[in-house]
Amino acid sequence: MKRLSKKRKQDSHRLEALFNPKSIAIIGCSGDLTRLSGRPLKFLLKNDYPGKIYPVNPKYKSIEELSCYQSITKVPEPVDVALLIVPVKLIEEAVEDCIRAQTRSAIIFSSGFAELGKEGKAVQDRIARLSENSGMPILGPNCLGLINVQDSIPLSFSSALDEDSILPGSTALVSQSGAIAAYILGTAREAGIGFSHWVTTGNEVSLDSFKVAQHLLEQDAVKGVMLYLEETRDPQAMMEAGRIAKTIGKPLVALKVGRSTSGRRAALSHTGALSGSDAEYDAALQKAGIIRARHLEELLDLGVVLSSSPKPSGNRVAIMSISGGGGILCADRCEDLGLEVPVLSQGTQDKLSEVIPRFGSAKNPVDLTAELVASPGMLGKSLEIILNDADIDSIVLFLGGNRKNGEKLSLDIVNVLRANTNSKKKPVIVSWMAAPKEAVRILREKEIPLLFDGVRAVNALGRLYEGKTGAYERELPVSGTERSDLLKTTLLHMASSGATANGTISLSESVSKQLIAQCDIPVPDGGLAKTPEQALEIAKRVGFPVVAKIDSPHILHKSEAGAVQTGIEDEKALTSMFDQIINNAKNYCPEADIRGVLVERMIGDSVEMIIGLKWSDKFGPMVMVGMGGIFVELLKDVSLRIAPVNHREAKDMVSELQTAQMLSGFRGKKERDIEALLDAIVAASRIGADLGSDLVELDINPLFVLPKGQGVVAGDALVVLKSMEAT
Amino acid sequence: MKRLSKKRKQDSHRLEALFNPKSIAIIGCSGDLTRLSGRPLKFLLKNDYPGKIYPVNPKYKSIEELSCYQSITKVPEPVDVALLIVPVKLIEEAVEDCIRAQTRSAIIFSSGFAELGKEGKAVQDRIARLSENSGMPILGPNCLGLINVQDSIPLSFSSALDEDSILPGSTALVSQSGAIAAYILGTAREAGIGFSHWVTTGNEVSLDSFKVAQHLLEQDAVKGVMLYLEETRDPQAMMEAGRIAKTIGKPLVALKVGRSTSGRRAALSHTGALSGSDAEYDAALQKAGIIRARHLEELLDLGVVLSSSPKPSGNRVAIMSISGGGGILCADRCEDLGLEVPVLSQGTQDKLSEVIPRFGSAKNPVDLTAELVASPGMLGKSLEIILNDADIDSIVLFLGGNRKNGEKLSLDIVNVLRANTNSKKKPVIVSWMAAPKEAVRILREKEIPLLFDGVRAVNALGRLYEGKTGAYERELPVSGTERSDLLKTTLLHMASSGATANGTISLSESVSKQLIAQCDIPVPDGGLAKTPEQALEIAKRVGFPVVAKIDSPHILHKSEAGAVQTGIEDEKALTSMFDQIINNAKNYCPEADIRGVLVERMIGDSVEMIIGLKWSDKFGPMVMVGMGGIFVELLKDVSLRIAPVNHREAKDMVSELQTAQMLSGFRGKKERDIEALLDAIVAASRIGADLGSDLVELDINPLFVLPKGQGVVAGDALVVLKSMEAT
Repeated sequence: MKRLSKKRKQDSHRLEALFNPKSIAIIGCSGDLTRLSGRPLKFLLKNDYPGKIYPVNPKYKSIEELSCYQSITKVPEPVDVALLIVPVKLIEEAVEDCIRAQTRSAIIFSSGFAELGKEGKAVQDRIARLSENSGMPILGPNCLGLINVQDSIPLSFSSALDEDSILPGSTALVSQSGAIAAYILGTAREAGIGFSHWVTTGNEVSLDSFKVAQHLLEQDAVKGVMLYLEETRDPQAMMEAGRIAKTIGKPLVALKVGRSTSGRRAALSHTGALSGSDAEYDAALQKAGIIRARHLEELLDLGVVLSSSPKPSGNRVAIMSISGGGGILCADRCEDLGLEVPVLSQGTQDKLSEVIPRFGSAKNPVDLTAELVASPGMLGKSLEIILNDADIDSIVLFLGGNRKNGEKLSLDIVNVLRANTNSKKKPVIVSWMAAPKEAVRILREKEIPLLFDGVRAVNALGRLYEGKTGAYERELPVSGTERSDLLKTTLLHMASSGATANGTISLSESVSKQLIAQCDIPVPDGGLAKTPEQALEIAKRVGFPVVAKIDSPHILHKSEAGAVQTGIEDEKALTSMFDQIINNAKNYCPEADIRGVLVERMIGDSVEMIIGLKWSDKFGPMVMVGMGGIFVELLKDVSLRIAPVNHREAKDMVSELQTAQMLSGFRGKKERDIEALLDAIVAASRIGADLGSDLVELDINPLFVLPKGQGVVAGDALVVLKSMEAT
Repeated sequence: MKRLSKKRKQDSHRLEALFNPKSIAIIGCSGDLTRLSGRPLKFLLKNDYPGKIYPVNPKYKSIEELSCYQSITKVPEPVDVALLIVPVKLIEEAVEDCIRAQTRSAIIFSSGFAELGKEGKAVQDRIARLSENSGMPILGPNCLGLINVQDSIPLSFSSALDEDSILPGSTALVSQSGAIAAYILGTAREAGIGFSHWVTTGNEVSLDSFKVAQHLLEQDAVKGVMLYLEETRDPQAMMEAGRIAKTIGKPLVALKVGRSTSGRRAALSHTGALSGSDAEYDAALQKAGIIRARHLEELLDLGVVLSSSPKPSGNRVAIMSISGGGGILCADRCEDLGLEVPVLSQGTQDKLSEVIPRFGSAKNPVDLTAELVASPGMLGKSLEIILNDADIDSIVLFLGGNRKNGEKLSLDIVNVLRANTNSKKKPVIVSWMAAPKEAVRILREKEIPLLFDGVRAVNALGRLYEGKTGAYERELPVSGTERSDLLKTTLLHMASSGATANGTISLSESVSKQLIAQCDIPVPDGGLAKTPEQALEIAKRVGFPVVAKIDSPHILHKSEAGAVQTGIEDEKALTSMFDQIINNAKNYCPEADIRGVLVERMIGDSVEMIIGLKWSDKFGPMVMVGMGGIFVELLKDVSLRIAPVNHREAKDMVSELQTAQMLSGFRGKKERDIEALLDAIVAASRIGADLGSDLVELDINPLFVLPKGQGVVAGDALVVLKSMEAT
């Protein structure tokens, strides 16, 4: 453990060197600063970079009065960061030179690597190994570099730096796409939004976006990190970044694009077909505690609101508006999102009535009317009154236009929020349509969350509230436990009875049920009968009516084979069914290994659900729960998480189901044993975590959920393992 | 009919006078042009209004070198429009003066009417009558007036006019809220979006927003109308506006706010509870063919895109992007909305490959790469190639930034679209993040739809495509038909057997079924039995098994009363059930009028749905269809329309259901008789239209939908009429 923490410290130093370098080498620097390879120097000079700059290019003796070096190995000191702008064919040598010169970190701007096919991929892989072996972190290749806005250090050739100065801010942007990062920068600038850091990670040969995010989250100047992701190369780094964000209490927001991968979807298993790979990302981001933005505008909105707002302690929203219409717009959206807009208490209404005009409204939405522009202090006074109302958890303030009074109004807001300590626990989100420039400047400077649309303001508040309710302790995977070893041994025994096909082993229902029963998921009373006499014995023990079904690892579709019979009422029926089931099974699949007939007690009044497990190569074991029967197929009504999950997560999964109401005594039916259902989800998720990649799939379908207090029972189970030869 | 058209012509002249006046009187005009009541004159002078201006104010002899009049009756000619900025207590007299002076139209800016309670409401009502009787249309009161931007005529005191000049454009904005209209104007200006007209309608004492919309849609300079609505006062005007928009082929887009009316909801009937008043608006807007925007940003986006784009002839989208990320963002959203992003044909790919760089992609999304900035004509050439691809129906072009090349790139787009006639039938929507000002100016000027976000561009394209698929002939209500008279007579007879309560009359199941059967909705074979013997006779005729249930207008919850039995297999069972049903019913409700026991054939394999009718005081008869049983209650899975509907509308209603798949042979079940279901919806909707407000509610629940070719059967029916005394 000590070594690990020493390594982390080293890594952290190296990243510090990358993000805040005291010395910079520019390898391949052009003497013509208008050229692409001259621009990084131009931008450093333009921003009065105070550290040392070493241009490296055998063609020049000096560039812009700076000595120019033949090679980085000739530079008089090891530099903090080397910027590499050299052709792909020279890259490996340049990286080796950097390592030789004890360079602390590097950025490769050049493109032409994995994105261009096999050959480029091979070069990229070799650079990755150089980075790994030397410990020198590399940003890129195929990226636009980074800008440390806080300290005015541009390490980029992006033309964004050509235009205006970059606005400083307190959130960092990390993007796998350089172009998108540049456009976000442009859009943000128009909205007066600044960044603390702007980082593009490109092909991520050594520095994964989540590793960058981890480093940035730990910086005092950074209040939150926004990510633009096309692919997660390092799921572990993602989990760790989420953990750090949670520990430090800063928001980590990610926009993950690339959902429309129609090809990949088809290849997935049944559970996979229902969840899809975007659902896996959803589950993984959720597990990591990372907030998912659904599109670019929302990424920016959440960056603004989440990094500068306290979390509301409840869902009661007061809307204050300069116009009736604005209040309605916001109230409508609140209701959509389950946020309450309660009528204000009489006390608060009385106080407000003394401040706002007679033709306004003190109820909620509070209509301050356009008079607020003419009446000095009216906005501030009413804001103060509502901040002090203990029955309100958050405030949305809707304003519009008012170029002449922008400064006055925004200062009024700033002053009240600064003076009133309740603003530390109650979010106040300002929505100001066509906001005047002066107001934007003031509110941004004071980090008061400002958006330009009422609905977007309420949307962001909704996510802020979600963050509050979803902030529970997640269970993180632990590998190599004693239980895990034990289970794997059991499995090894069971596998010998299974049916092998396509690198997988399917277990029969009875064997699958043995496994889940051992892991505390209840199965029906019953047993495996080799003869009609044994079947009768079992039926007598568990009591009629019973269910009888073929037990064979080769027959997975038992109904289709005519090899299952429910509701067998007496001995005679059972005896005749026994032979029929065996015969039907043999006709259906002559070469099937028939282990016998499984005889079980019939399960009465219940709600049918399904629990599934599957292995994701990217994210590891995943657990799914859904409403069974017609619902899962008709509505795709399922919820997916990375396994294991704890009780609280299981509860969230169930409450996400569109049909969750069926469990709570719907339509005069009895309330179901939800606690037992949650236990079963947790138990199943642990099987997934313990067995890891050995378990390809586990389906419990149906899982009968009985009335409250009576538990759950697995109606059927199917375990599919990875073939032992394949491991 | 002739008189009506003459009146319409007169109305139209009056509105022409309002929107394009040659002479203006300003009643209550202040000599101080900085004051609110001086501003309308200030703005007219600032905009060099070429017509005659007559200030009216007894306090002045002249204002700004214009003669000022004691009263409008002293003005030397009848004016086209009078602007009234006088206190509420003087308003009635001023309006009467206007009428006396043969003023053609008026705008009342003053507030303090219905929005302030009873007394103001009374004044407002009197003004409404003055307007109605004289034929002088009045805009307002409590409004910000209007701006005819096309002709530079401001009739408003809005401070929006103080700032910059208003950008001209080709869509009109009509808003019930003055403030929201002003903020939209500000937001639009920032986006470079102009308007042809800007109209605020306030309390709508005489001019309803839809009447204004009708007039504007008929103007050549107007390519589309956008509405901000809080309430529709004149549903007929709404229908007519939709009809005009459809006939002329211009988009009419409405943002209807005010959904969160929790109080009103509770009072609604069962069907009402499922649909709610916002669902009624949805149904009404749909019937009118008006496109509903879901929030302010979308209203503006749709205004930009719908008024300047042809409708795509299919759902195949090509995405062209300056960056890989932009393409992914747009493709993801396309898939969400059911828009296809197909791989381009080999021919098109080959042509593109000659134009775009090797590291781009010619598939789809087409990645043009940032090279498009450096390579002159590359954007235009590739756009041309895709415009000429017959397998592509619309194009989304994703660009970002590029301040230096904004002009060049946008001219490239403009030139290709102008020269290529395919641009007349294929929408090309430009999404340009952080677009440079010059590009915005050029694209807006040429009316090329431009948005600043990829997802919003795809959203707008989705609505454009929806408009295409939803463009069917709607059936409009016709009243006073022969059929309607006949049905009402039938009903009068039936009502005598019903149960009266709270101003309504409920009919028993058998009577209700008589009514629907008469209107071509099938009911099960069966009959009403007064004695066990009659019951047996009926059962023998229809064949066992049968259903028996009490028939009483007083017992609506038959199961609850224990007065319904399904699956009666033989004579013995039927005889004993007959007495039991009668006894249970009498115990449940001793004073119930028991008409007998309804004996019907059991319906076999079917999907249960519901059809409902209800009367809306605002929109008239409404028809609802939903998936029956658990679905309607669990998922609120219903679709609502204004009755009557035709076959095509009925089909849309069914396909809107989340569970529609259950009808098309889901899970190995037989395909259902969807045609018969549609016939039943159409038939039910005609009952609603024919009976009008006499029918409070009609519930067919369940409606059994049998396998294809076997029709539908109403399992139960309940008709509730308005009590005759109440009419």
